[in-house]
Amino acid sequence: MYRAAVEDIAFTLKRVAGLKPALDAGTFGDLGEDLVDAILAEAGRFATDEVAPLYKIGDEHGAVLKDAAVTTPPGWKELYRRWIDGGWNALSGPEEFGGQGLPTMLAVAALEMWNSAAMAFGIGPTLTMGAVEALDKHASEALKAKYLAKLVSGEWMGTMNLTEPQAGSDLNALRARAEPVGDGTYRIFGQKIFITYGEHDFTDNIIHLVLARLPDAPAGTRGISLFLVPKFLVGDDGSLGARNDVFCSGLEHKLGIHASPTCTMIYGDGFGGAAPGAIGWLIGEENKGLACMFTMMNNARLAVGMQGVAVAETATQKAIAYANERRQGKAAGYGGAGMAPIVHHPDVQRNLLTMQALTQIARAISYSCAHAIDRARVAGGEAAANWRDRANLLTPLAKAFSTDVGVEVASLGVQVHGGMGFIEETGAAALYRDARIAPIYEGTNGIQAIDLVARKLPLGGGEHVHRYIAELKAVADAVRISNVEGFGRTADALDQALDDLTEATRFLQKLMADGHLDAAQAGATPYLRLISLAAGGAYLAQGGLADHSRVPLCRFFAENLLGETRALKERVTGGAESLAAAGKALISA
Amino acid sequence: MYRAAVEDIAFTLKRVAGLKPALDAGTFGDLGEDLVDAILAEAGRFATDEVAPLYKIGDEHGAVLKDAAVTTPPGWKELYRRWIDGGWNALSGPEEFGGQGLPTMLAVAALEMWNSAAMAFGIGPTLTMGAVEALDKHASEALKAKYLAKLVSGEWMGTMNLTEPQAGSDLNALRARAEPVGDGTYRIFGQKIFITYGEHDFTDNIIHLVLARLPDAPAGTRGISLFLVPKFLVGDDGSLGARNDVFCSGLEHKLGIHASPTCTMIYGDGFGGAAPGAIGWLIGEENKGLACMFTMMNNARLAVGMQGVAVAETATQKAIAYANERRQGKAAGYGGAGMAPIVHHPDVQRNLLTMQALTQIARAISYSCAHAIDRARVAGGEAAANWRDRANLLTPLAKAFSTDVGVEVASLGVQVHGGMGFIEETGAAALYRDARIAPIYEGTNGIQAIDLVARKLPLGGGEHVHRYIAELKAVADAVRISNVEGFGRTADALDQALDDLTEATRFLQKLMADGHLDAAQAGATPYLRLISLAAGGAYLAQGGLADHSRVPLCRFFAENLLGETRALKERVTGGAESLAAAGKALISA
Repeated sequence: MYRAAVEDIAFTLKRVAGLKPALDAGTFGDLGEDLVDAILAEAGRFATDEVAPLYKIGDEHGAVLKDAAVTTPPGWKELYRRWIDGGWNALSGPEEFGGQGLPTMLAVAALEMWNSAAMAFGIGPTLTMGAVEALDKHASEALKAKYLAKLVSGEWMGTMNLTEPQAGSDLNALRARAEPVGDGTYRIFGQKIFITYGEHDFTDNIIHLVLARLPDAPAGTRGISLFLVPKFLVGDDGSLGARNDVFCSGLEHKLGIHASPTCTMIYGDGFGGAAPGAIGWLIGEENKGLACMFTMMNNARLAVGMQGVAVAETATQKAIAYANERRQGKAAGYGGAGMAPIVHHPDVQRNLLTMQALTQIARAISYSCAHAIDRARVAGGEAAANWRDRANLLTPLAKAFSTDVGVEVASLGVQVHGGMGFIEETGAAALYRDARIAPIYEGTNGIQAIDLVARKLPLGGGEHVHRYIAELKAVADAVRISNVEGFGRTADALDQALDDLTEATRFLQKLMADGHLDAAQAGATPYLRLISLAAGGAYLAQGGLADHSRVPLCRFFAENLLGETRALKERVTGGAESLAAAGKALISA
Repeated sequence: MYRAAVEDIAFTLKRVAGLKPALDAGTFGDLGEDLVDAILAEAGRFATDEVAPLYKIGDEHGAVLKDAAVTTPPGWKELYRRWIDGGWNALSGPEEFGGQGLPTMLAVAALEMWNSAAMAFGIGPTLTMGAVEALDKHASEALKAKYLAKLVSGEWMGTMNLTEPQAGSDLNALRARAEPVGDGTYRIFGQKIFITYGEHDFTDNIIHLVLARLPDAPAGTRGISLFLVPKFLVGDDGSLGARNDVFCSGLEHKLGIHASPTCTMIYGDGFGGAAPGAIGWLIGEENKGLACMFTMMNNARLAVGMQGVAVAETATQKAIAYANERRQGKAAGYGGAGMAPIVHHPDVQRNLLTMQALTQIARAISYSCAHAIDRARVAGGEAAANWRDRANLLTPLAKAFSTDVGVEVASLGVQVHGGMGFIEETGAAALYRDARIAPIYEGTNGIQAIDLVARKLPLGGGEHVHRYIAELKAVADAVRISNVEGFGRTADALDQALDDLTEATRFLQKLMADGHLDAAQAGATPYLRLISLAAGGAYLAQGGLADHSRVPLCRFFAENLLGETRALKERVTGGAESLAAAGKALISA
């Protein structure tokens, strides 16, 4: 059973991602280490004691649709109620609307814990938080007044309606339409798919954020507007009125996260006797919906990255516990009676250490991204721009690398369990199932990699990424001069990895400057893994410098896993031509 | 929907794994290319038209246990009947008992197709074939006369009963017992778990091969004997008699291969009113059961490797088809109207080419292993020993590398499908579920790696592996002097990979010679992948030399994926110390 990794989370936040120096410098005002620790401990308790025990029933029971109403698994509605009563939904929400206004780092740390305990639970509130941010930044005062407080508290939940059958990664093809009524409202028509928590019984009302086109809108993404469409209309006094014409017509039968209802939503079909046309309100300006939605999406990308970290953490805990319990064979290092616990076998240790190292790296990258978001918010001038660039640079890493790690680690977790790993009752297989969605939704990892190369490498005139690499280099230098025993060849391995990273970065930057976008895209996925591994090695070393008990895992990573960067660099710098040559044969005549 | 890859399979058998020169030289007697082609085409037709259409119902319905009887999914029993009527079970069986005595290569090629079409179907007959081989080699003439013909034809199926709750990878802990009755029979008592097709409705009788201990047996694996235990006793005229005291008490609820019943088998519990003690007959000598079982296990390891190849092939076909159909976004290389099929995006091509290359490599390794088995059988003297060593060397690669590839490729297949990949109806997720068992059963991949390092590297006084590497080097040389356009840097990349392999091999051989077994085990898993990638690169190159249309994929592999060998070599030669240092912290106090 999952126990929240509060200590490791606190350590990574404070000593690796930068929270402690920021707190010491008063960067976040009154916020002190005591409050941070108290919040993490309390979130850990809730995740461990309240959320985790409901995981299995959620996986087995799933969400059920009947007559357009979705029932969540037994106990989940009550769990959600206890969770919002604990104030967890409001953690980072704006104070003006009842939120606690705490840094993103804390929200993200808590999010890791909810997702570790039950990913299908953690994903719901993630969307509400995104909706809060989009409304807070872009909505009219009237809409804010009516909706924000209840979304911040969690009394209502929010959703994000982008995808249509023909429009997934490419929103140009979006068809849902919005007709202005003339009284400030719009009538929304169309079908949306893959809508997470699009319908459920957690809350009395559900606030849908929906992308649609106005009648006279330009083609493509420049003609998309964002609308707020409540499930029930809301009176000026906040009371619930008529049922709006938006209904769930189907639930997907998914590989994992069974308790999370993935809905097909029908807008404006007059279903259930509602007047045709779902009534909606414009958020932000007409035809600028995508920009508003991106506020939600960036947020959601980091949040999905946390799901990767979260499932990797749970899988690692489970595998280590099993390896200490299960006995098979003899091991040189085991002096006890009978068969050795399999944790004594070097090959099992390799799997477990790989799981630990990858999990910690993904966490460090994600928290560093959250830290940059927080610093950008409180800093001024050039510093703010630099932190914003950092957050933008790290967002695709946090999303894609962490979720790849989630799958990789969950798969290793099944392997460590041997035959029991394939049996559903054990729980390792469920993590392997759940983990698989995270590299896909909120922009596939391939799209994250292209975003990294095409939009993030150019930040700061192409220099921001090199400033970041220089910071990582400084960690390698610190290791070298530290004289801390046990780092082994860590400093050399880090230097090599960072040199690989620099070379690959300059190569891609030149490709793009020369207009070779296809070749740059061909190298995007290996590049994303390269920068993540190199950065991760530096983060582990930073942790080792701050706490020497962490040095052995850092060294294991540096001497066993970091060497992959050279092959990745070669793929980036020398792989595109052969890819293009071989790729032609894939295309059907 | 899967279409058997008959052309690629035939090409790999004949031009890469060595079948064509052997046929041309008359190595397999009368067997000619025409017959080989005809068998492959017919197997392909059966797999495509008959097996594949029943996959989905098998996955959704699964096997069902009621009152100790197992019902397979609708249509599966009839499928099995058509399959044995087609003579497919008898393909490689001994001619003396009605088999066709065809080379293992053909059996393995057909096995790939059954498993591609439905892994849960392919696994059943695999065990029957193993039982046939064990009986043919070790059983008394009386047992052979009574059981072999019906196992060869498939009228009855066989099972393999090793695992008990406390005895999985380590059979020392095995507890099932066998009491001699005095009339040549034994009474078997005990519980076996994870018994594939331990009970089902395909056949009237099921012949269990069971490991158990005699009362006076030595402890450990030297005290294990092998018994034949039929579900129904068989009269001298072949008629079915009394129900034996072996019953299925439970089915596992598994992640994948749902249609394959994974049974808990109870021997000698007097269940169902049977007289207590399952009646069994000794196979081979007392206390030598493990050696007999190893005949089955080696066979089964290659067969499980084929499951890895098979699921990778199906996942690749599915992903390529989807990528040609699904349209999203713009692509530089696409001149058509509207959105481009996603197969035009370089990042998607990278995934698809990686899937193709890994699948073909795993296939080439596995077929080369089968070829070595066949050559060992027909060769004499030193040549036979050399081929036997080759088969032994390649068996852990065929099993472990191929099944790792199965998981990796199935996961990429889900990714290529985007959101649809996570929806069960699409079918990509089911492959991801099915694939996950193959790295576990028939000896986990970690155990395969240790087997490779500890038992296979010493073959031929430690020289056999170097002879193998020299053969692979000759392929690199042939590429270099071929002047075939389009190989790019393939020869250099291959040379580098083979140098990495030589260095890692000598390093591990020295470690073992010096008695550092733990350090050797620490490097086993990266070594297995290293030798597999290097060999695979050479096999792809051999294919490219024989058919120039295959050069681009070979080059893609050499220039994009083969570079991983350097990092693997570094893990082997420099990773053990840090692994041991960090591993200590994993052990619970």
